[in-house]
Amino acid sequence: MTERPLILISNDDSINAPGLRVLVDCVKNIGNVWVVAPEKPQSGMSSAMTVNGPLRIKEYPEYNGAKMYSVDGTPVDCIKLALHHIVPKKPDIIVSGVNHGSNAGNNVLYSGTMGAAMEGAMIGIPAIGFSLLSHSLSADFSHCTDYITSITETILREGLPYRTCLNINFPKNKINGLKVVRTALSHWTEEYREYVDPHGKPFYWLTGSMINEEPDSDDTDLYWLDRNFATIVPTQIDQSDLGLIPSVKELLEE
Amino acid sequence: MTERPLILISNDDSINAPGLRVLVDCVKNIGNVWVVAPEKPQSGMSSAMTVNGPLRIKEYPEYNGAKMYSVDGTPVDCIKLALHHIVPKKPDIIVSGVNHGSNAGNNVLYSGTMGAAMEGAMIGIPAIGFSLLSHSLSADFSHCTDYITSITETILREGLPYRTCLNINFPKNKINGLKVVRTALSHWTEEYREYVDPHGKPFYWLTGSMINEEPDSDDTDLYWLDRNFATIVPTQIDQSDLGLIPSVKELLEE
Repeated sequence: MTERPLILISNDDSINAPGLRVLVDCVKNIGNVWVVAPEKPQSGMSSAMTVNGPLRIKEYPEYNGAKMYSVDGTPVDCIKLALHHIVPKKPDIIVSGVNHGSNAGNNVLYSGTMGAAMEGAMIGIPAIGFSLLSHSLSADFSHCTDYITSITETILREGLPYRTCLNINFPKNKINGLKVVRTALSHWTEEYREYVDPHGKPFYWLTGSMINEEPDSDDTDLYWLDRNFATIVPTQIDQSDLGLIPSVKELLEE
Repeated sequence: MTERPLILISNDDSINAPGLRVLVDCVKNIGNVWVVAPEKPQSGMSSAMTVNGPLRIKEYPEYNGAKMYSVDGTPVDCIKLALHHIVPKKPDIIVSGVNHGSNAGNNVLYSGTMGAAMEGAMIGIPAIGFSLLSHSLSADFSHCTDYITSITETILREGLPYRTCLNINFPKNKINGLKVVRTALSHWTEEYREYVDPHGKPFYWLTGSMINEEPDSDDTDLYWLDRNFATIVPTQIDQSDLGLIPSVKELLEE
């Protein structure tokens, strides 16, 4: 009998997020599931890690056959500690999410969900980040679950090239189909609201909205999410801009 | 008379880091310098940002002609708040650092120094992250200063393509020359030491060392830093893996 694959799950919304349990439910029949997720919400934590402080691991009762652990750090901390001190062997796949909120467009740069996936990709573990375009804790994930199971099965079987992962986003209410695309050029704008505290001192709170810089480009994630398609962006770790090396060489090399 | 360029400086080692003052000294003669840096050390914070909490701005006495502010958040928070509430116009360039420690190899993914630079690049501001391969707070930066001044002047004059920035690392003691290269494929290993607290409970602390997966590749940063060259990696924000789209399409699209 072949050994069942080891599936490591993490997220950035914390061990208590409903989306995490949805993900366990989706993949429990295709492998042995280990969950190592942040103790507290870590949205917007990107690939941050704890470099100068202690980390603790907490164990919870199993959920639906899955081993459950939290780490009091970031999503990257969860993956690193999971690999070094929790899971019994190198995972066959890492799945992250299901995130409560979009990681399409330039959100991917800030995403803790994708930070966890990239951490796996960097050491050759196939990895997928799943996100739903709704921040609600009572969001309905039922239109996504068959996709999550089937994509995870496929990637478990086929693998992904070294140092790549998938960034998958689902529309909020229904899915007309799947599109494999690139990240839309985009940025956030009007980003802080100003307040005054009871002692008269100002403070600032992040807000604002995403600007799609290329709304008509039909090879991008934001274009198809707007049209109720799920989107898959193959994502690489390396950010070296190889095409720019010759001109920078000319400008700056001695 | 032409207006002097506005130079925005940030880092991840905090407003109190010696490397930050080195950077001010290097560029003070070529523009009006505004420093907006984290109140506390933020190493390893990547592109993390504060999405669900208040941020405060603190003003300090000028240093060497530079306006000095701190934000009680991450390097990305510093850049975002600087642009929205501190600097009087869009900066002509963002320079980040000088970091106490390497941001070569896969460090770039976790780097708060580079998180600040990428935040500028994403909205079309030319940006450079500078790092020295020494963690010491009393490190000697004197072999780097002429390079920092001259590179900053060149990029101010010539600009950089939209959504790109430069990741520049200096060897610890001397510089044999400059090389424009790509990031070496690399990862960290043996990453946690286990301790037991006075109450008998375990905790974990990050350690380990970087593995260069391609030590003989002479087009990489780690190769040339080992040989006492400064390295410049042109770095892009977008992580879409365009080359991978066709095969993932075949595998997963309906």
